[in-house]
Amino acid sequence: MTSVTSHSINHPDEQVIRIFLGGKHVTHKVVIIGSGPAGLTAAIYAARAELQPLVIEGFMKGGMPGGQLMSTGEVENFPGFPEGVQGADLIQKLKQQAERFGATFLMEDVETADLTGSIKKLTTTSGENISANSVIIATGARAKLLNLPSVETFWGKGVSACAMCDGALPIFRNQPVAVIGGGDSALEEAGLLSKFASKVYLIHRRDEFRASKAMQKKVFDNPKIEVVYNSVLEEICGGDLVESIKLKNVKTNEVTEVPMKGVFMSIGHSPNADFAKGQLELDPAGYIKTAKPTTKTNLDGVFACGDVIDPNYRQAIVAAGTGCMAAMDAERWLSSQ
Amino acid sequence: MTSVTSHSINHPDEQVIRIFLGGKHVTHKVVIIGSGPAGLTAAIYAARAELQPLVIEGFMKGGMPGGQLMSTGEVENFPGFPEGVQGADLIQKLKQQAERFGATFLMEDVETADLTGSIKKLTTTSGENISANSVIIATGARAKLLNLPSVETFWGKGVSACAMCDGALPIFRNQPVAVIGGGDSALEEAGLLSKFASKVYLIHRRDEFRASKAMQKKVFDNPKIEVVYNSVLEEICGGDLVESIKLKNVKTNEVTEVPMKGVFMSIGHSPNADFAKGQLELDPAGYIKTAKPTTKTNLDGVFACGDVIDPNYRQAIVAAGTGCMAAMDAERWLSSQ
Repeated sequence: MTSVTSHSINHPDEQVIRIFLGGKHVTHKVVIIGSGPAGLTAAIYAARAELQPLVIEGFMKGGMPGGQLMSTGEVENFPGFPEGVQGADLIQKLKQQAERFGATFLMEDVETADLTGSIKKLTTTSGENISANSVIIATGARAKLLNLPSVETFWGKGVSACAMCDGALPIFRNQPVAVIGGGDSALEEAGLLSKFASKVYLIHRRDEFRASKAMQKKVFDNPKIEVVYNSVLEEICGGDLVESIKLKNVKTNEVTEVPMKGVFMSIGHSPNADFAKGQLELDPAGYIKTAKPTTKTNLDGVFACGDVIDPNYRQAIVAAGTGCMAAMDAERWLSSQ
Repeated sequence: MTSVTSHSINHPDEQVIRIFLGGKHVTHKVVIIGSGPAGLTAAIYAARAELQPLVIEGFMKGGMPGGQLMSTGEVENFPGFPEGVQGADLIQKLKQQAERFGATFLMEDVETADLTGSIKKLTTTSGENISANSVIIATGARAKLLNLPSVETFWGKGVSACAMCDGALPIFRNQPVAVIGGGDSALEEAGLLSKFASKVYLIHRRDEFRASKAMQKKVFDNPKIEVVYNSVLEEICGGDLVESIKLKNVKTNEVTEVPMKGVFMSIGHSPNADFAKGQLELDPAGYIKTAKPTTKTNLDGVFACGDVIDPNYRQAIVAAGTGCMAAMDAERWLSSQ
């Protein structure tokens, strides 16, 4: 695990080293936790407002530095890129832009946080202590995935957790795809995918859906959607890309292999807000509550943005928008102190 | 004024012509009004969701097609462009991206709108009738400007209406700048600019500010800010860029010329929502009310996004974020019908 301490004098980021060198401790105006589109846009705005933000990028908790886009292939819907852009390239651009205006980065996870006082205190996994007048939380969320090796193997090669992001990609056009899940989101994603795919298999481990009756009716009326009850994904097969899936009927234990080009996981998301539990108000699903339309949390000087506040849209561009708002809210709040 | 009718067979946009040709009238699934970052991002998302959106770009009302970015020079803070991007180039990219997925465009203004029924009815300035199941309003806002020819002459050459957007640009670093206004925004912008400029003149036509006492104290305590009461901007002078301003004292009529590199107008914004008055709920300042965190208005099937709903942030990236949300809200609403 990367660690920036007073001893890590070979670390390439001299500005970060300076902060910790010789045990000298500064209180940052703004610390941003998270480095997806929300955190990096907050960093761009905070840096341009001369707040010298420190971005704690994350390392292993809740996904990799850069967030969910790092494991996305081509992104077609981030506005500004008519030909599309690779997720990792987009993140790199955002980071460069934040660095250009003076943001500094620390590739570590936050281990503990005391956000209640007027000085916010964070410790990282390597034991570094960080103080800040204000904190922007942009730790994102992660899609819940089935614990199958082949899900990882084919991630971005036909396996996705976002029909809105990836459904329109050429590899799924007029091809059979599967949605795994039984809630509102799963049924909604099946409906959306039916616009592109030749056929959508909606695979659910139980014999009825949790989704609303209205939503179920839409699915049952859609000739392109075939509901497969009492079934679980056993394995995803293929070469470079997904070619088929094996389904196991949980009542009969029969396994069937079905040709398939896409597999969309829709079994829910987990916001990465555990470290703030007990201090920040969370909704029942664990998302941080904000006083919309602002990004203010229940704690003075603590702001939240991106997927960790958003169970509804989960799009990079929406996260970037709320990241900008969080930086502006923080800047205004600091000015008012 | 550009007009697309059954007779305009030479219009380059064949898809739009087809819609109107021979008096054949279709009901669009989604019509988007406005073509700034919000409208174009809504178009990208709606087009990718196979809703074949028609974008009524606007022509003369409320600014030009493409919105406020068209008259902005370099944009440094739209995430994804580490080296910056020209405002007009960014708009062009967003439009290409929407066109790539099948959005069509009509360069006209909306003259009348009936948004209350299940079929929304719009007429354009040239008399075209357009029907839609759902409408996304992204008509933006415009900064109020002083009615001086030199404001127009030096627009983007030192004159701006957004300190957050432009304050950090190199041309203003360690240079004297002026803020025109006396409300909360003006005082906030003066504070922000004091981080970059050598000196900030805060020019107000009255002898006291409307802004809060706390905000006033911050300004009075800031050694870089000089308050100039009872004064109005008479003229902006310069060559390629702003070099000085002439101020008139409204009590003595004395005119003083002061060296100046930047002039920031902060006398308020007007949302472009007049055409929806009486149907859509507006706030006291004229912004369209939405059921946040969604983009739903008080009318079924009508969504609003971008600066026309946002008196607080007014950033392209925030507008793009809510544009995405509006398209997703419209898609979900249409699916539920």
